[in-house]
Amino acid sequence: MPSKSHFRWGILGPGSIAKQFARGLSASLEAELRAVAGRSLARSEAFAAEFKIPKTYASADELLADPEIDAVYIATPHPFHLPLVLSACAAKKAVLCEKPLTPNAQGTLQAVAAAKQHGVFLMEALWTRFLPAIVQALAWISDGRIGEPRLLEASFGFRMGWEPESRLLAPELAGGSLLDVGIYPLALAAWVFGTEPTALKAVGHVGLTGVDEQAALVLSYPRGELAVVNSAVRTNTRHVATIYGTEGSVTLREPWWKATEVTLSANGTEETLKFEFRANGYEYEADEVQRSVRAGKLESALVPHATSIALARMLDSAREQLGVKYPFEA
Amino acid sequence: MPSKSHFRWGILGPGSIAKQFARGLSASLEAELRAVAGRSLARSEAFAAEFKIPKTYASADELLADPEIDAVYIATPHPFHLPLVLSACAAKKAVLCEKPLTPNAQGTLQAVAAAKQHGVFLMEALWTRFLPAIVQALAWISDGRIGEPRLLEASFGFRMGWEPESRLLAPELAGGSLLDVGIYPLALAAWVFGTEPTALKAVGHVGLTGVDEQAALVLSYPRGELAVVNSAVRTNTRHVATIYGTEGSVTLREPWWKATEVTLSANGTEETLKFEFRANGYEYEADEVQRSVRAGKLESALVPHATSIALARMLDSAREQLGVKYPFEA
Repeated sequence: MPSKSHFRWGILGPGSIAKQFARGLSASLEAELRAVAGRSLARSEAFAAEFKIPKTYASADELLADPEIDAVYIATPHPFHLPLVLSACAAKKAVLCEKPLTPNAQGTLQAVAAAKQHGVFLMEALWTRFLPAIVQALAWISDGRIGEPRLLEASFGFRMGWEPESRLLAPELAGGSLLDVGIYPLALAAWVFGTEPTALKAVGHVGLTGVDEQAALVLSYPRGELAVVNSAVRTNTRHVATIYGTEGSVTLREPWWKATEVTLSANGTEETLKFEFRANGYEYEADEVQRSVRAGKLESALVPHATSIALARMLDSAREQLGVKYPFEA
Repeated sequence: MPSKSHFRWGILGPGSIAKQFARGLSASLEAELRAVAGRSLARSEAFAAEFKIPKTYASADELLADPEIDAVYIATPHPFHLPLVLSACAAKKAVLCEKPLTPNAQGTLQAVAAAKQHGVFLMEALWTRFLPAIVQALAWISDGRIGEPRLLEASFGFRMGWEPESRLLAPELAGGSLLDVGIYPLALAAWVFGTEPTALKAVGHVGLTGVDEQAALVLSYPRGELAVVNSAVRTNTRHVATIYGTEGSVTLREPWWKATEVTLSANGTEETLKFEFRANGYEYEADEVQRSVRAGKLESALVPHATSIALARMLDSAREQLGVKYPFEA
């Protein structure tokens, strides 16, 4: 447990998403970015120089052995999350791990079991949940401002070029749209309707490399609520999310997954609230980790283990329906 | 075949949708609205007075026996379409029948067989296909302006009150969202991606009366194209339809199913075209019937029998997945 005023972070996997996180962390007065490690020492050193990080380690194990690290942020490609989560838990570090926590439910259960076994905090980096606009949207909904929420539409698709060597298209790196961006609208649906859909049906396009280049899912929930979500890595879509209720709707403006603007339409009027990030939006998930760890919690109340397990099962089901199996899966 | 300059219409089922059609017809110089018949003579007479229709018949059979009628427009509740289509075909009248042509594929096949047997024109009233904005959208797509079309999103949901006696909620009148409005986005997907999806998966909420109050469908097509559509009679949704391609997108502005505004986004620029209806949009399907019949055709090139059969099969599949069966179905 961090005893000092600064909460000391280490980064494992200094890639592009880690840069975003480091920028977010800079907006936290409480946070100190203390160390970094990755597969390439040169890359780690460049990262450390860019973000003025005092320590660069040659390996994750060395970083995890540093007693002056309170928490690690894991930002490697997906299949490398689990071994690092297990090591970090064993080293008694709090863990914030990029989404998906692991590529499938089996791995996610292992990650959660390790955190429980070692008594350390573990959270999947579903940063969107902590953005002020999303918090506002969910508050309007739970306050009944749109009546009963009935239907959710959300899309997150982007178009990359045909780069078959990219991690996004590589089955051995758990590529595909579902795990990379489909998890965002699935998570939003879970926050609105809960984590136990009564049905999940998926279609998709599995491309030449064997991963889903686009996917579309429909889900139903116990009271007949429906969610319609889609994801793509080879098609640009409009990144809007709307929750329709019996008495109105809430719309997260483009791009909804890093929303700063949210509109409530009800009773014939519209109210739009705009928010500014302190940094780039990643600071709010860092706040959550710091707050939770300092409070002695082992999981986030807003992104608990159960949500990560449920999402992993949904993604498993969707991939199974599409026929996408990764080579490292039995 | 109509030999005079005027194309003479009879209306069967003078309800609210027939009023829309009559208003549309008023914008056709070629058309003459000559007769009306329905179950209630008083209602037919009031309708005739409102639209200055010279003849009111006490029954459909009497109207169909009038040699001075070239075509009939059938606008009764769904389950009454088929018997009227069969009678109209036997009476050698061209037929424009409200959608869904019949409540299921079995009925639709019967309707088409009757039209072929009697050598008369038959078209399902998928009026949206003929709207200038839709024609423009499909032209941009077939001209390659958005590259390959990859993903379609379309929604058509409205909220009626809890009126269990309404035809929309009555299983004996083939109620539910799919047949009433779900057919619109399904038809749009057919116009963009074709009528042979490789998969169609549906979820929905079946309410107390036994019909789908809302439904969400995902479809995939032979080249991996996806469609995501939803419909509702108990939830208001945003009536926007977008087709995303590899190089851009086309958006039909709200309400897309009677669109007057369409936007092409491609190459970093946006082009929006606005159209004005001559009347209310229904005139374009009347034009299609008149043009096709005068040309001696037995079906529309744009809304052929095959499309109606395919859509009926899709709706059957969706209802089967939701467990919605009408009492008149075996």
